[in-house]
Amino acid sequence: MLKGSQTWVFENKPTIISAATVVGPFEGQGPLADDFDVIHEELLIGQDSWEKAEKALVEEAGELAIKKAGLSKEDINFYIGGDLMNQIISNSFAARTLGIPYIGIFGACSTSMESLALAALMVNSNAANYVLASACSHNAGAEKQFRYPTEYGSQKPPTAQFTVTGAGSAVVAKGGKGPKITSATIGRVVDMGLKDPFNMGAAMAPAALDTIRAHLREMELQPDYYDLIVTGDLSKVGYAIALELFEKHDLPIKKDKYVDCGMLIYDYDKQEVFAGGSGCACSAVVTYGHLLKRLQKGEFNRILAVATGALMSPLSFQQGESIPCIAHAVALERGEG
Amino acid sequence: MLKGSQTWVFENKPTIISAATVVGPFEGQGPLADDFDVIHEELLIGQDSWEKAEKALVEEAGELAIKKAGLSKEDINFYIGGDLMNQIISNSFAARTLGIPYIGIFGACSTSMESLALAALMVNSNAANYVLASACSHNAGAEKQFRYPTEYGSQKPPTAQFTVTGAGSAVVAKGGKGPKITSATIGRVVDMGLKDPFNMGAAMAPAALDTIRAHLREMELQPDYYDLIVTGDLSKVGYAIALELFEKHDLPIKKDKYVDCGMLIYDYDKQEVFAGGSGCACSAVVTYGHLLKRLQKGEFNRILAVATGALMSPLSFQQGESIPCIAHAVALERGEG
Repeated sequence: MLKGSQTWVFENKPTIISAATVVGPFEGQGPLADDFDVIHEELLIGQDSWEKAEKALVEEAGELAIKKAGLSKEDINFYIGGDLMNQIISNSFAARTLGIPYIGIFGACSTSMESLALAALMVNSNAANYVLASACSHNAGAEKQFRYPTEYGSQKPPTAQFTVTGAGSAVVAKGGKGPKITSATIGRVVDMGLKDPFNMGAAMAPAALDTIRAHLREMELQPDYYDLIVTGDLSKVGYAIALELFEKHDLPIKKDKYVDCGMLIYDYDKQEVFAGGSGCACSAVVTYGHLLKRLQKGEFNRILAVATGALMSPLSFQQGESIPCIAHAVALERGEG
Repeated sequence: MLKGSQTWVFENKPTIISAATVVGPFEGQGPLADDFDVIHEELLIGQDSWEKAEKALVEEAGELAIKKAGLSKEDINFYIGGDLMNQIISNSFAARTLGIPYIGIFGACSTSMESLALAALMVNSNAANYVLASACSHNAGAEKQFRYPTEYGSQKPPTAQFTVTGAGSAVVAKGGKGPKITSATIGRVVDMGLKDPFNMGAAMAPAALDTIRAHLREMELQPDYYDLIVTGDLSKVGYAIALELFEKHDLPIKKDKYVDCGMLIYDYDKQEVFAGGSGCACSAVVTYGHLLKRLQKGEFNRILAVATGALMSPLSFQQGESIPCIAHAVALERGEG
């Protein structure tokens, strides 16, 4: 399964037999609205705190993904999930509700592909029949924890990003109908010394580059092997930097075959989202809700999904630390069905 | 590899080819002092914050484990680590220093066995040649984040636990000399409705029971298959409850073959630790520093290490939630060398 030093090749082609996405009202007003399974009309999702709302989102996405797979909770061997909340309470409390053996992970906004890569590893090596992989975030919960509660009305610079409210879940199985997971590259931490939490895209772009380069090198592939390369949440600022970095490192990845989930989910003309979307849910709902559908429709045959994460905390920022970033890449291929 | 629904059997017997433990001054005054590789004389470990001290501990343990294995950082495919800090900054920043492709996890004090189980999974399925598995905690960092800074001098009830300052790391490889990892059971979240963060042992005991029962059932084993069953950090209160629960569920696990890491690490007569030790480092340093040595000396042939974790956050507590708990079990056998 290991190819090179940090890449897994999945000979048994683990399959995403179902995926579910649940989003908040603002995401439901964006251009991808039709691709999401559930759009909630209010940000509290019927709960009495932002944190409980986030938990409700990931519970709903997980339950829906299991249902769409025609399975019950008891069929799922492992639930791998993570989020941005301190002690990843959204997923841990959802794991209490779901009752599935649970592997909590933390990769900040790279969580979606970290969980999907681990799920594929388990299925590929006969360590599981079915794995549920989830990631979620909530705009108000993240603002409250990482910046200022939105109620304070603090102003933001145009490089800031807008945390996606939502959750994305996938059920990975050996065989069946759906997109195939063919390989994954686990990223290393890259830190270029940037310290501005209002410009995460710039901080994360070098991590995306590092993982994409490692993936192509270890898989012995050229970028055009993929019909689309997608990063998680670099948004406008990080996307432009990534394109520059690709050019600087002689990687022929051009605008027409490279997109970022944080730029796809909102309408810049109508929605005030600064540089674009971010948060664990960003790559999760765009990949599972939007891109997999385009893949299965035949618009592409192969996608490389590269989820990017900023691994700082408010406290590490306060102590003067720069932002360590990471990216994990998962290669997806069109499957039948 | 999957046996039953939540257990992995490792046919290729992944091996702990080296382990390293680094602890603080208080742990160095306890009964296991001679088993630890490094004992720091001051709690700040030469850093200027508790959080940086915790990072320094896990960096040192990781580097030492790699060195003891006769390897360099470049030989290690993946670093799997986690801790109790918000956004697991101790491990993420250590991953920046180490430069090894990184899988961040969160399992609270169950992290040690969560990371070891995943490391064994990777090595067993040829997804890695060498994996570094780490966990750490720091008494003052944890007190500051979860309770009150120790400088406040807040009083505590006797059911409270004392967070271990330390870090434990293991290098897992396919073959080689050292203890063998033969199986692992991933736990589900168990929550009996307890809400008192000053009595985590009571909250976690049912999770330990659930995972031990699942392990024995799926492996078709009786408890006496293991020469020793060890829980992570139930400490005195949780240990007594666990014994009651074993009896109630007709599990013949008696005092003479059952220990808890939180009761082994300190001297109750000389050290004021309330119910005993806790924290991610508790099971990590006691298992890697103390128990593996006894295993390799031939005192036992087989150990079942069950690390227990309380997955709450200060915020979930403030919002009136009870404490969801989890336990992951790893079976270890004496190997040559």
